[in-house]
Amino acid sequence: MLDLDSPNCERLTVAEAIAVCMGALDRLGYEPDDARIITDHLVDSALCGYTFAGLPRILAIASNPKAKEPRQRIQAVFETPASSLIDGGNNVGYLAAHCGAMAAIEKAKFCGLSAVGVYNSYYSGRAAYYVEKIVNAGLIAIHASSAQPKVIPPGSAEPILGTNPICFGFPSRSGPVIFDAGTAAIMGGELSVHALLGEVLPAGVAFDVHGRPTCDPKEALRGGVAPFAGHKGFGLSLSVQALGLLAGAALARGTVRDYGFFFLAIDPAIMGPMQSFEEQLARLVDEIKCSRKQPGVDDIRIPFERARRERNRRQEEGIVIDRKIMGEIRALGARAA
Amino acid sequence: MLDLDSPNCERLTVAEAIAVCMGALDRLGYEPDDARIITDHLVDSALCGYTFAGLPRILAIASNPKAKEPRQRIQAVFETPASSLIDGGNNVGYLAAHCGAMAAIEKAKFCGLSAVGVYNSYYSGRAAYYVEKIVNAGLIAIHASSAQPKVIPPGSAEPILGTNPICFGFPSRSGPVIFDAGTAAIMGGELSVHALLGEVLPAGVAFDVHGRPTCDPKEALRGGVAPFAGHKGFGLSLSVQALGLLAGAALARGTVRDYGFFFLAIDPAIMGPMQSFEEQLARLVDEIKCSRKQPGVDDIRIPFERARRERNRRQEEGIVIDRKIMGEIRALGARAA
Repeated sequence: MLDLDSPNCERLTVAEAIAVCMGALDRLGYEPDDARIITDHLVDSALCGYTFAGLPRILAIASNPKAKEPRQRIQAVFETPASSLIDGGNNVGYLAAHCGAMAAIEKAKFCGLSAVGVYNSYYSGRAAYYVEKIVNAGLIAIHASSAQPKVIPPGSAEPILGTNPICFGFPSRSGPVIFDAGTAAIMGGELSVHALLGEVLPAGVAFDVHGRPTCDPKEALRGGVAPFAGHKGFGLSLSVQALGLLAGAALARGTVRDYGFFFLAIDPAIMGPMQSFEEQLARLVDEIKCSRKQPGVDDIRIPFERARRERNRRQEEGIVIDRKIMGEIRALGARAA
Repeated sequence: MLDLDSPNCERLTVAEAIAVCMGALDRLGYEPDDARIITDHLVDSALCGYTFAGLPRILAIASNPKAKEPRQRIQAVFETPASSLIDGGNNVGYLAAHCGAMAAIEKAKFCGLSAVGVYNSYYSGRAAYYVEKIVNAGLIAIHASSAQPKVIPPGSAEPILGTNPICFGFPSRSGPVIFDAGTAAIMGGELSVHALLGEVLPAGVAFDVHGRPTCDPKEALRGGVAPFAGHKGFGLSLSVQALGLLAGAALARGTVRDYGFFFLAIDPAIMGPMQSFEEQLARLVDEIKCSRKQPGVDDIRIPFERARRERNRRQEEGIVIDRKIMGEIRALGARAA
């Protein structure tokens, strides 16, 4: 968390943050329609309190080697009434996965449920961002995204699986319930922060480039990480990688260790109009929140609740961003010009 | 694991195990068609090496209070071409969930993907059993089953969620890949075994009836358990409970903390005939198994691989079962007669 009053930080209104994003993306060569989609995602992440998934990600997009390769139009290459396979045309995931989520909504509205796969892309940002869009359309969502190898299966000494987040989202009368989790023991962003701050990693989460256990975050950045919770995390990560294959991951570059964004959307009405799913889920949430607490505990946090609360607060108070990073984002134009 | 040569154990051929199951279920009042479905599940579990999910489960079925309440016919109460909501008619999950899995296969074969919910039931056994049936039909499966409260969310002092397993299954050219995991820190069966053997539980996994942490398995059986991996396990468990609601969990007894069996089946062909999902997944599995290993590691186990290997072996060698438990199963007839 950045300190709101630190002299190293700059405070932006939402409108200012949007302008900064749009400007930088324009200078990177993104058309306004595309820039708007990426900007909405990044500003939303900043509002929800995911500092490093916010504006700083423009720098990561700009420096990704794939961003330097030619881009083609994002297009569906195979469709059924309830499904779509989308070639991302080497566009960044912020655009290609957005397209996938929109297709999943449209097809689920029509068929009751839908499955969409997106391949030939990279780096799609926060899974919960897409899932919230699907949930706001009144649908239940499952979203899995496989990536390039970073996670080392138990017993192995080389990265084979991605950090492979899986995300479940549900509409409820008391607001969306969205559970979004990476399947790695530690996220890439956390490794970078630990490396930056010169901190030691906990034992058992990371490996160096030779596959040997390490507590040095710099070594881990060149090596790999363990799945969370041992064999359970491995099984979940492998399942996400398999859903990535279903989403076409192997079609882009001929390797089974690659990016695939899979979306599933379900209209609760396909289980009968007499049910009120949103009502029932609100009741379950309420029973959790009103349950007897452990000593010293005031509140039980439901997945996505904190993000929603932060977003409401920051829409008033603005977004805070490190001055050095802001300088680099502003300089992107100069370099690209 | 039971010792194959222990004098406390009896060894049964598959045919003998089937006869024992069919006989006991007949004496409990199950029609032959229903008894065959339950028997197939229990004998398969025994073959796969899940000792307590095998024949001993007949005793659990017989003693469940719901088994004493009237049963109605299992029937679909709402359908679309791609979905079905099934009232389990207070039949045991072994029957009702089987019906759900069969409906999921039929509808996915027709529509490309399907969602099926089953409610008004209890106790469905091994999730992987149903998922293997779906996978053997060439389909990808996601299966979630919510149950009655046993798991205490982080910060709470009362059970609200079930032990809520989630299972992903994928066809592959080198055999099904099935990942099946409970979302509790410790399974009910394990608690019973620890209680039986007078063993102490690890810290942090269990609570007594007042919601206070305990290491006593007997206290935990009357209290509750934590989700696995803290907030990640809680989020996954809550997602399974929500999918249970979609499956009709609240319709049976008017409570949102109840059994719901949710099935999702996807024909990989809906993502385009040019793909070969089964081939690609076999390649991924192969890359994991052939990867460089940690010192002292011979083999990396893929989810479901051990179960398949055990099943092949035991089909030859037979099933081993504790004599005392066999006596109780045989006595079921006498009591019911």
